[in-house]
Amino acid sequence: MKAAKQTLALSSVYRLLEPGPVVLVATSHKGRANIMTMSWHTMIDFEPPIVGCVISNRDFTFGLLKASRECTINIPTVELAAKVVRCGNTTGRTVDKFKAFGLTPTPASHVAAPLVAECYASLECKLIDARLATKYNFFILEVVKAWIDPSRKNPRTIHHRGRGVFMVAGRTIRLPSRMK
Amino acid sequence: MKAAKQTLALSSVYRLLEPGPVVLVATSHKGRANIMTMSWHTMIDFEPPIVGCVISNRDFTFGLLKASRECTINIPTVELAAKVVRCGNTTGRTVDKFKAFGLTPTPASHVAAPLVAECYASLECKLIDARLATKYNFFILEVVKAWIDPSRKNPRTIHHRGRGVFMVAGRTIRLPSRMK
Repeated sequence: MKAAKQTLALSSVYRLLEPGPVVLVATSHKGRANIMTMSWHTMIDFEPPIVGCVISNRDFTFGLLKASRECTINIPTVELAAKVVRCGNTTGRTVDKFKAFGLTPTPASHVAAPLVAECYASLECKLIDARLATKYNFFILEVVKAWIDPSRKNPRTIHHRGRGVFMVAGRTIRLPSRMK
Repeated sequence: MKAAKQTLALSSVYRLLEPGPVVLVATSHKGRANIMTMSWHTMIDFEPPIVGCVISNRDFTFGLLKASRECTINIPTVELAAKVVRCGNTTGRTVDKFKAFGLTPTPASHVAAPLVAECYASLECKLIDARLATKYNFFILEVVKAWIDPSRKNPRTIHHRGRGVFMVAGRTIRLPSRMK
């Protein structure tokens, strides 16, 4: 289950997040690590890869991210769907989600927040702009290091449709595009 | 091909955008309408539905949106993929994309920008916050009216993986979630 991850070029990060997968955000502050489930994110720039995301001020992660100014974004596939939902149904205030759900924190290289070993890709992020955090719970992150399991050619990411309904990534099509 | 659309409750809009589909953004200013292809968007709040999106200052739509402060977001399915890519490969400065690609503009109810009839869902949007537009090309929109073709139960949306590679929405799974 645990992905053997290698470095991914920062210029390719947008190809992971642009399709809209549910992700796990891991944070750590003063030795306290947490995971949350998140679907409200978007790429903002290609390189360096800049990501915008919404983390509610009701979430335990909100305070950990504001205090540590770091996090990791980890991309799960459908095999992890039940654990992903459990991470979304609980709060880190009362549960150590890594232990409770059998997810493995491994050290990142540029941030104190852990990577989630079971996810096929992980992005190490620094918080670079929180000016919309108060009004919109919106954070802007820079990805400073990216990891991917190169053996996963067509990852079955999951995409939330609300109320526990998820679309699983289907077939791939190719069209002659000038888009990056 | 043209969707017979009905009103969708604004509280359900997040269920359309959260999975990360490629969308068509339509704008209109002084009688000049345009369409662009966009994948960099995220929900920001549930109700009223607030959406954040990145529209490059190199895109013709950037100026039309800033001037008119309105747009529509239209969600295509895989049958429209070739037209979606053509909209992304061209610029409205020199091409009337509605005419060139056989897409049908129909009147919206709250904004001057047209709906794209062929898309299974359309959202009428007002620009409410452009303070990050200069630095990040990031616009914050409020959805003021939503339309959907209720006959489309499992829409095969397309999700961009970069360089003309698209993931087509696959099967649906349900898990016991407390997430909205």
